[in-house]
Amino acid sequence: MTKENNRPLILISNDDGYQAKGINELVDMLRDMADILVCAPDAARSGFSCAFSATEPLQLMKRREEEGVRVWSSNGTPVDCVKLALDQLLDGRRPDMVVGGINHGDNASVNTHYSGTMGVTLEGCMKYIPSVAFSLCDYDENADFEPLRPFIRDITRHVLRNGLPKGVCLNVNFPVLREHGEERVEKGYKGVKLCRMSLGSWINETVKCRHPRGYDYYWMVGHYRNDEPEEQDTDRWALDHGYVAVTPTQIDVTAYDAFDLLRELGEADSSNSF
Amino acid sequence: MTKENNRPLILISNDDGYQAKGINELVDMLRDMADILVCAPDAARSGFSCAFSATEPLQLMKRREEEGVRVWSSNGTPVDCVKLALDQLLDGRRPDMVVGGINHGDNASVNTHYSGTMGVTLEGCMKYIPSVAFSLCDYDENADFEPLRPFIRDITRHVLRNGLPKGVCLNVNFPVLREHGEERVEKGYKGVKLCRMSLGSWINETVKCRHPRGYDYYWMVGHYRNDEPEEQDTDRWALDHGYVAVTPTQIDVTAYDAFDLLRELGEADSSNSF
Repeated sequence: MTKENNRPLILISNDDGYQAKGINELVDMLRDMADILVCAPDAARSGFSCAFSATEPLQLMKRREEEGVRVWSSNGTPVDCVKLALDQLLDGRRPDMVVGGINHGDNASVNTHYSGTMGVTLEGCMKYIPSVAFSLCDYDENADFEPLRPFIRDITRHVLRNGLPKGVCLNVNFPVLREHGEERVEKGYKGVKLCRMSLGSWINETVKCRHPRGYDYYWMVGHYRNDEPEEQDTDRWALDHGYVAVTPTQIDVTAYDAFDLLRELGEADSSNSF
Repeated sequence: MTKENNRPLILISNDDGYQAKGINELVDMLRDMADILVCAPDAARSGFSCAFSATEPLQLMKRREEEGVRVWSSNGTPVDCVKLALDQLLDGRRPDMVVGGINHGDNASVNTHYSGTMGVTLEGCMKYIPSVAFSLCDYDENADFEPLRPFIRDITRHVLRNGLPKGVCLNVNFPVLREHGEERVEKGYKGVKLCRMSLGSWINETVKCRHPRGYDYYWMVGHYRNDEPEEQDTDRWALDHGYVAVTPTQIDVTAYDAFDLLRELGEADSSNSF
């Protein structure tokens, strides 16, 4: 990585693997704005959340190097990739930003908790580096990312310039332009909405199958149910209505509002209860 | 599972595997209070966070059944275990509580985000079931869980009776009684503290090694650094001072306080920016 220049440095990872279209489009969108280091899984790691490899040996493999862009892969999780890149690939230089994506699929609502792309972004945030996740709600491996370009450039430039509050990252989701809900949007996104994470549920998540050898096995599938369909301040609503959903997301998961309700628990002298 | 009785039903899982001492001690502590279904990984899955198996076929194996206690294992993640148990092992009955643990190790501070035990608990919470994680800050596979018993029974009974606010679960961590910080506690825990999640960082997380065949590989290791050592309202402080740390933890990770700062981003008409 050229150290003499004054260009910012962006660390990019994902959970679809270093060869996915989304991450390569992202590099293409940002490479004139910053030096880029990609360190991403060597294959798909969807649904890996903030998992890291506590017991497995990890490897890094250099895949290519061009002017201002280095691409590495690892056999680890998305979070492993961020940790390895920060520790092993930067000679102590600190990225100006960590970016996860562009994910092939929806990371809004409770998907936040399962997403490896959000794992990348939360990991960057836990290292106090301004971090953003970009996801397109389209699972097609050949999805069209081009309409996202101006938004991704704009948000990245904003974050490079202004940073983000400590302990806060951004979860940015784009609806599919082809159709969303009952209306069709053909002229582009309606705009950007700051939203909150909506509550939702995955239901009917497992399907039982019979193996030819006579035992049962299961696939994780499921359908998403919006548990707040009327609420207009949510990421789900924004996506369903043609907006780019930007959800400021924090590391601190403390439920401060619950303290009063739980006061009895905290004051109990449990050692005398039984 | 006996359906005729009126006993509550508790679903238990962990990330150390169904054979770990911690989960078996937990069953022993709670079996007089409720029917118990254990569905836990078939081996250790530490650091698995909320990961689920998006692409791998899963299996379930019945390990044992006793009066009021059924034990199953799965080849999946901690979150997979909860999803499979709810979908496949309960004939539509809904547990009154989901409990993760007892974890062999510390799940306070940012470990919340990496913990498979918290994955179990967040998964239960995302299903709107009152859910609690119990962790002992001792990685010894033969750790002494007995001092935790009255607290675990007390908290479980409280939650069975009163439930928890929607979208809120509990992350309960116990310090090691043998020693903590510079003082020794031999007479038991000082009490229970409701606390917030502290900010902290894992540093020097990777170690490079040389394989006998001549290539580099890496282990995830690291040291925890408390980034708020002076703050007395944190889980870290409570643990360092001999208290049981109860951190109310929420599903909603929206950073509401950041909205004002980010307003410019949300109002930008990005489509005209480039």
